[in-house]
Amino acid sequence: MPNSTPGKAVIDCEHLKKLIREIPDFPQKGILFYDITTLLKDKVGFATLIDALSEHYLAKEVDLVLGIEARGFIFGPAVAYRLSAGFVPVRKPGKLPAARAKYDYVLEYGTNTLEIHSDAIQPGQQVIIVDDLLATGGTAEATAKLAEKLGATISGLGFVVELDFLHAREKLEKYDVFSLLHYQR
Amino acid sequence: MPNSTPGKAVIDCEHLKKLIREIPDFPQKGILFYDITTLLKDKVGFATLIDALSEHYLAKEVDLVLGIEARGFIFGPAVAYRLSAGFVPVRKPGKLPAARAKYDYVLEYGTNTLEIHSDAIQPGQQVIIVDDLLATGGTAEATAKLAEKLGATISGLGFVVELDFLHAREKLEKYDVFSLLHYQR
Repeated sequence: MPNSTPGKAVIDCEHLKKLIREIPDFPQKGILFYDITTLLKDKVGFATLIDALSEHYLAKEVDLVLGIEARGFIFGPAVAYRLSAGFVPVRKPGKLPAARAKYDYVLEYGTNTLEIHSDAIQPGQQVIIVDDLLATGGTAEATAKLAEKLGATISGLGFVVELDFLHAREKLEKYDVFSLLHYQR
Repeated sequence: MPNSTPGKAVIDCEHLKKLIREIPDFPQKGILFYDITTLLKDKVGFATLIDALSEHYLAKEVDLVLGIEARGFIFGPAVAYRLSAGFVPVRKPGKLPAARAKYDYVLEYGTNTLEIHSDAIQPGQQVIIVDDLLATGGTAEATAKLAEKLGATISGLGFVVELDFLHAREKLEKYDVFSLLHYQR
């Protein structure tokens, strides 16, 4: 079980996994969906999750946490609060009201676009990107490139759940990738 | 300036307002949009915001914080973390994977539906609802009714920004409504 944090944290992670509900065939047949809402509503589980995710970055200088709409908004701001960092939302097209930078990328079933405010990041700021799930890594990679376009230094990519069998780390090898919970299928 | 927290907190709130960017004619002509992203990215401003919003509930027993997709996800979980409560997402139709309760309601320009997992709240649990903006109050009222349908006791409704001139409090008079920042136009 390749948890990135050794010792006591491994036990906590196994406890967290028990709070995640597994739903077969969602959103489509053949997909096993890891439903984190059962973990979020558990007050001890939720606090443990945010603490464990934040802990990886406590020794780093983090200016901003970037979170991706919509489920990334659940974790990014809480981690930013824990780290005393600012939070920057990365959104679907047309949602942000001021001047925007955008990034188009290819997904398994079509293309997608992410937007960020052009003035959201100052060149040289240390940024981490936080999302609920690391699957193929396409969205995380796009977000990192978008942030780099604005001059950010990417200090890390943090996830609650990583689907190890999709090998996203190969695509993200230039970054520090940290995931709390790992699944082999 | 009817801030709900007296003394020092009033000064903090005035400071927070200076961090909010005002954008005329967004999303449509004649609307003055209060863009909170400039506040979120400010590390001191963001911490102050979450602390000030949470402070109102520190003396209460809060089991769960409910947040509404998508901007409500930015604040609800951070407040839940601060209060050591659980977090429950209230989402647009079709996003939640398990059995759901739903609530249809009428908005200014059409109807809307909110969904919550049927098992998200245990009868009798003390719940607060947190969102970015209190405008007409329709979404907040719908969320409160949805939570009450599952047996929740609504301990409060908390907002970052309230547009006082839309008089949402009349609609929500049976609830404890707390907003950090008030605008008269």
